[in-house]
Amino acid sequence: MSAQSQLIEQVRQRLGPRGVITDPAEIEPWVSDWRGRVHGASAAVLAPSSTVEVAEIVRLAAEHRVPLVPQGGNTGMAAGATPPSDGSALLLSLRRMNRIRSVSAEDRCAVAEAGVILATLHDAANEVGMRFPLTLGARGSCTLGGLTSTNAGGTQVLKFGTMRALVTGVEAVLPDGSVHDGLSGLKKDNRGYSLDQLLIGAEGTLGVVTAVAVRLVPAIAQRAVAWTGLDSPSRALDLLRFLEARTGTVEGFELVPQDSLDLVLKHIPGTRAPLTGEHRWHALVEATTPDAHVDIAAELEALLGKALQQGIIADAAIASNEAQAEAFWKIRDSISEAERAEGQTLAHDISVAVADMPRFLVEASAEVERAFPGVIASGFGHLGDGNIHFHVRAASHASPDWYEAEGAAITRLVDDLVTAAGGSISAEHGIGQLKRAELERLSSPARIHALRAIKQALDPLGIMNPGKLVP
Amino acid sequence: MSAQSQLIEQVRQRLGPRGVITDPAEIEPWVSDWRGRVHGASAAVLAPSSTVEVAEIVRLAAEHRVPLVPQGGNTGMAAGATPPSDGSALLLSLRRMNRIRSVSAEDRCAVAEAGVILATLHDAANEVGMRFPLTLGARGSCTLGGLTSTNAGGTQVLKFGTMRALVTGVEAVLPDGSVHDGLSGLKKDNRGYSLDQLLIGAEGTLGVVTAVAVRLVPAIAQRAVAWTGLDSPSRALDLLRFLEARTGTVEGFELVPQDSLDLVLKHIPGTRAPLTGEHRWHALVEATTPDAHVDIAAELEALLGKALQQGIIADAAIASNEAQAEAFWKIRDSISEAERAEGQTLAHDISVAVADMPRFLVEASAEVERAFPGVIASGFGHLGDGNIHFHVRAASHASPDWYEAEGAAITRLVDDLVTAAGGSISAEHGIGQLKRAELERLSSPARIHALRAIKQALDPLGIMNPGKLVP
Repeated sequence: MSAQSQLIEQVRQRLGPRGVITDPAEIEPWVSDWRGRVHGASAAVLAPSSTVEVAEIVRLAAEHRVPLVPQGGNTGMAAGATPPSDGSALLLSLRRMNRIRSVSAEDRCAVAEAGVILATLHDAANEVGMRFPLTLGARGSCTLGGLTSTNAGGTQVLKFGTMRALVTGVEAVLPDGSVHDGLSGLKKDNRGYSLDQLLIGAEGTLGVVTAVAVRLVPAIAQRAVAWTGLDSPSRALDLLRFLEARTGTVEGFELVPQDSLDLVLKHIPGTRAPLTGEHRWHALVEATTPDAHVDIAAELEALLGKALQQGIIADAAIASNEAQAEAFWKIRDSISEAERAEGQTLAHDISVAVADMPRFLVEASAEVERAFPGVIASGFGHLGDGNIHFHVRAASHASPDWYEAEGAAITRLVDDLVTAAGGSISAEHGIGQLKRAELERLSSPARIHALRAIKQALDPLGIMNPGKLVP
Repeated sequence: MSAQSQLIEQVRQRLGPRGVITDPAEIEPWVSDWRGRVHGASAAVLAPSSTVEVAEIVRLAAEHRVPLVPQGGNTGMAAGATPPSDGSALLLSLRRMNRIRSVSAEDRCAVAEAGVILATLHDAANEVGMRFPLTLGARGSCTLGGLTSTNAGGTQVLKFGTMRALVTGVEAVLPDGSVHDGLSGLKKDNRGYSLDQLLIGAEGTLGVVTAVAVRLVPAIAQRAVAWTGLDSPSRALDLLRFLEARTGTVEGFELVPQDSLDLVLKHIPGTRAPLTGEHRWHALVEATTPDAHVDIAAELEALLGKALQQGIIADAAIASNEAQAEAFWKIRDSISEAERAEGQTLAHDISVAVADMPRFLVEASAEVERAFPGVIASGFGHLGDGNIHFHVRAASHASPDWYEAEGAAITRLVDDLVTAAGGSISAEHGIGQLKRAELERLSSPARIHALRAIKQALDPLGIMNPGKLVP
């Protein structure tokens, strides 16, 4: 019996039949990334329901030298939770670890297991009058373990930061099967290197995150959502700074080019333009407050009125009700879907310093369109974080294999431009499998050496998510 | 010529005479910790003035296998910057690296070299209408490099967090002499393990921090400082939560027992009791706002009035001017000095979960006083962070060698109690030399193994601050 078969059998004996899935039909949805670009193989899905069971599996995996691929909701953007295609590793699903261990309004803290769905945590916090502020498109299926392991961002980072700023403690099973318990809820703790911080964003390569303690903030009492039309990304940044200098309520600020808006209006049923005129660029602004006594819509309206007077924006519409607010957000959230409907698109999740983004966006788009005639390059998203989803669409006459034929060359150019601007080729999506080669190409040898040394130090047998993150 | 002498000579040749101090009189102030408890030796102080020079020194040190002890203002509490007494290592002073490279109100960010004094950064931020919110007693001499390397806390952590929450990027020379440049100013960056986070709090054992990018916040337009009298630590926490549920302005909240207040009034000239009656416990409250239009003193007064009505506090006084506010803070800041004037004191920088601190404080004090008859145990400080400076004073009849004779046993008991309560034996002061043995005694073997593995991976020659942090 192979080492893998022995491991599967031993896990079945210890965890019972629910702890091991071997039916190929049940495994199939989990061995490819959700965008269907990377296909892997796994003879079984190991499905522990407790930290003790995870530790047991990791100890057995170390004993048998069988690598494990931790997986949450399988909504990652870099195929970081997709097993190797040679079947050498086994999927370790955290989805059965789905208990919220505690939620406290008083302590402003929740402890959630790795398999808890983000939307479930949102609801649990809401029930005690609090809020977990991080959110993103996949909130109905992504898990806290995956969000932590990828240091996920989303649309509210501007005010609340990425997972790194919200996770106050990590429980994880280390590659030797020991349990690191960082859930103590200590606000201050200086007992040596922070394993918590090392595990956040490690994509499961240094251990299996089994639970996290997260910070909660007061629930939103009111929100106001506005759509603004403006001339340029630079004007959009002016608007953000104008607002931030005058209020602490802005928590969402998304840049949308006219081109993206047009695609949404064309392909997504039920959408309509928020403004009557034409504008080259748009910014979606969300302001919130936990204070029921402030009229946040009136405040935002007054500020946008001043911005209009000062020529920062050309037009603005404030959502007059929740349905309209949702309609504005739907435009933003549908851009990727509309692009896919239009044709082949190449996505890049990049960041540069916030102040540099307007110029970078204009210059990099021009550079890519010049180098690859016919393509359309544009960026949308989290301008206030210096993080733009820089997408390049195939020319209308492109051949069906454009993505395969030209994709790598275009990505190299984009990554070169980002790196030259002092930016990051992975702002919030991680490295996974898809960006490893580019990470190696564009990092200093010293940095690559350091990443490898840390990996080797903590996972000398190489059993934790092989082939991910570390070049 | 010994390896050390060769290194010193080569550094002198490359950096010039200002780069190497060998006059024993000039070296002497830096080889002991500032409290005078730990004495080391160093044949020279290497004093680079740029990152390039630091890198050169580290490369030479690696070549000659001569360990280096990075040092900033030498204000640490755990002797983390004190060289070994056998003279085997050389002090590497960062104090000549004292440039503020940039301060931007627009980007809400500053970049300061490791040797910049905290108060200097405060001033620089203030000049552009901004503020670096972390502060602590040693602000006139501690440096940004040391603050980063110890993940320092201080009195404003409640609202702004420790250095870890304020440092947005680290530049450091790694043990192989390569430069890690994390100063890009990116708000989102997921390119592999966070070396920045690993270096924060690493006490110079994984590399030499040469510069940091830090977050700035809007300058304070107004502050209000109040002194309250109350019955118990539990009531103090009630007060904090009462205030935090009603305002976002509280940024300082310090607990002071009557015993500490008495000592300050007795030993520190010019101090007087803020309240007329007697109270068993006190809480110093500081509220601030960047908004000039809010009457923050009136707001705090109204809230404290309600807290009085509800029986949470027994009395309160709001400082009527800046001089009075400073007088309130002076009481808090003078506690350690007053204790030293009174007699021998043993300090413990501990933390437990915020909600657990009131009970822990009462129970642990009783336990220590029971186990060591005659001593007085009390805690003061950052209740809102779950971080108390738990001090044990010798009995009035104690012998002069009480500290040496009983100190270790008392500390072991305190550390045992903290550990049993799920807390940390080092909340904000770090491990340095002084807490290494206790860290090893009270940590899981897996954690110690992980710390050693990381150290070995990044500093295989063991040249970075030997004998610190890692047991």
